[in-house]
Amino acid sequence: MKQAIGIFDSGVGGLTVFKAIRQAFPHQDLIYFGDTARVPYGPKSPNTIIEYSVQNARFLLQQGIKTLIVACNTSSSVAIPHLKKLSKIPIIGVIDPGSEIAVRSSKNKRIGVIGTEGTIRSMAYSKAIKRLEPTAEVFSLACPLFVPIVEEGWQDHPIALKIVQEYLKPMKDNDIDTLVLGCTHYPLLSHVIRKYLGDKVKLVDSADAISEHLTELMPVEDDGQLGKDSFFVSDNEDKFASIASRILGKDLDALKRVRLFESWFVD
Amino acid sequence: MKQAIGIFDSGVGGLTVFKAIRQAFPHQDLIYFGDTARVPYGPKSPNTIIEYSVQNARFLLQQGIKTLIVACNTSSSVAIPHLKKLSKIPIIGVIDPGSEIAVRSSKNKRIGVIGTEGTIRSMAYSKAIKRLEPTAEVFSLACPLFVPIVEEGWQDHPIALKIVQEYLKPMKDNDIDTLVLGCTHYPLLSHVIRKYLGDKVKLVDSADAISEHLTELMPVEDDGQLGKDSFFVSDNEDKFASIASRILGKDLDALKRVRLFESWFVD
Repeated sequence: MKQAIGIFDSGVGGLTVFKAIRQAFPHQDLIYFGDTARVPYGPKSPNTIIEYSVQNARFLLQQGIKTLIVACNTSSSVAIPHLKKLSKIPIIGVIDPGSEIAVRSSKNKRIGVIGTEGTIRSMAYSKAIKRLEPTAEVFSLACPLFVPIVEEGWQDHPIALKIVQEYLKPMKDNDIDTLVLGCTHYPLLSHVIRKYLGDKVKLVDSADAISEHLTELMPVEDDGQLGKDSFFVSDNEDKFASIASRILGKDLDALKRVRLFESWFVD
Repeated sequence: MKQAIGIFDSGVGGLTVFKAIRQAFPHQDLIYFGDTARVPYGPKSPNTIIEYSVQNARFLLQQGIKTLIVACNTSSSVAIPHLKKLSKIPIIGVIDPGSEIAVRSSKNKRIGVIGTEGTIRSMAYSKAIKRLEPTAEVFSLACPLFVPIVEEGWQDHPIALKIVQEYLKPMKDNDIDTLVLGCTHYPLLSHVIRKYLGDKVKLVDSADAISEHLTELMPVEDDGQLGKDSFFVSDNEDKFASIASRILGKDLDALKRVRLFESWFVD
């Protein structure tokens, strides 16, 4: 058995990251975990996001992975230092890869970042972008309704455009030329965002960013055998399987539900 | 120490239920638990809703409560039979009280029910209403964006009216005269719903329904001492405290965060 790459996300959104990595590394075994029982992570406190991310990482580490990809932007923005304490394997979030592409593609160095409350509050993108390009001006904005709109399947509904306009007006006013889509759900709204901001604003997608980053770090090996996919979720297997087959363009052959041992206690 | 009434909800919404019970029973001790780490329950599977509801109920039972109120409509619609196995104390959800008021107030027996995916999929309201009034026609509809709109504080935003129109058009077409607001968040959209459906449609609110039901079940005792309030949440204490003080009109004096022991396993 080959050692797999592990990927976790708060839900289904990270499947776009999974797909990009699968395309770049056809011979790697990949294991995906989606915490569909506790999605969304965006509105949760940093402590809770860290706690859940550590549980998810531990589960994947138990499967003997050789690299851990944190597809969830909210987890990536607060939990990476805590996850690095769990293991010596490479642990890679989406913040640095996305920030690198943003800095590289921006000409006027006026960069917008949109994400969940947790991601924006952490200022992780803003710090990473300024570390790479200290003269950059970063405009950050939480867009809490984007995830529910996508989950409801309303990305082509006229109301989606209204909500995009309402949130992104400050981005337009600030004359950004690059916008980081700092949540795995947001690429599903790209066409609406592009309609409002125009074609001149470059949209940066976590999935592209991280698979590009990974190809720089890891050799693309070909042992003649196609890599195996395994999927684990904490709830709603059927809903996950149906969304996954739409995103990945094929049915899942290995999907299992995982559960937690749980009991409440007061600190 | 008096034996308290315990109330749980998936988050902050159940505070409207808490408030109504506090007003009806000023001398009772009340304990509230909001599962703010795992909110929302609406999109989760029945098994997960049951599992979380059992954990919440166990925690309150450990505090020695004499009655358990399930303020969350999603929990009420699937978990009550499972909770009743945990204890012999009265365990009361919002479905039956809300259905009773709906049947009583409807003249044309055309009753609408709106709620989360979990509540609507369970058909709990529809069954309860038809048990009380077999000739009633019940029109049920999930409105997954109502909770995020309220959580975002957009209940007075023009987009709220657009979303209400989009969801509730079938209710208008079906000529209902009563609408059950089957989620504790929805009363915060009452004014928008009323604007669209008009004043002739009676809106049924879980908080009023359950406190009315409880006054029929329990004597309102006056031992000369005002009841004590205790609040427990699983995340975001500060956010909870600020919303709670707005809903209850006073600051909370006893709020604690509770945590879970957790580790994943495959079934």
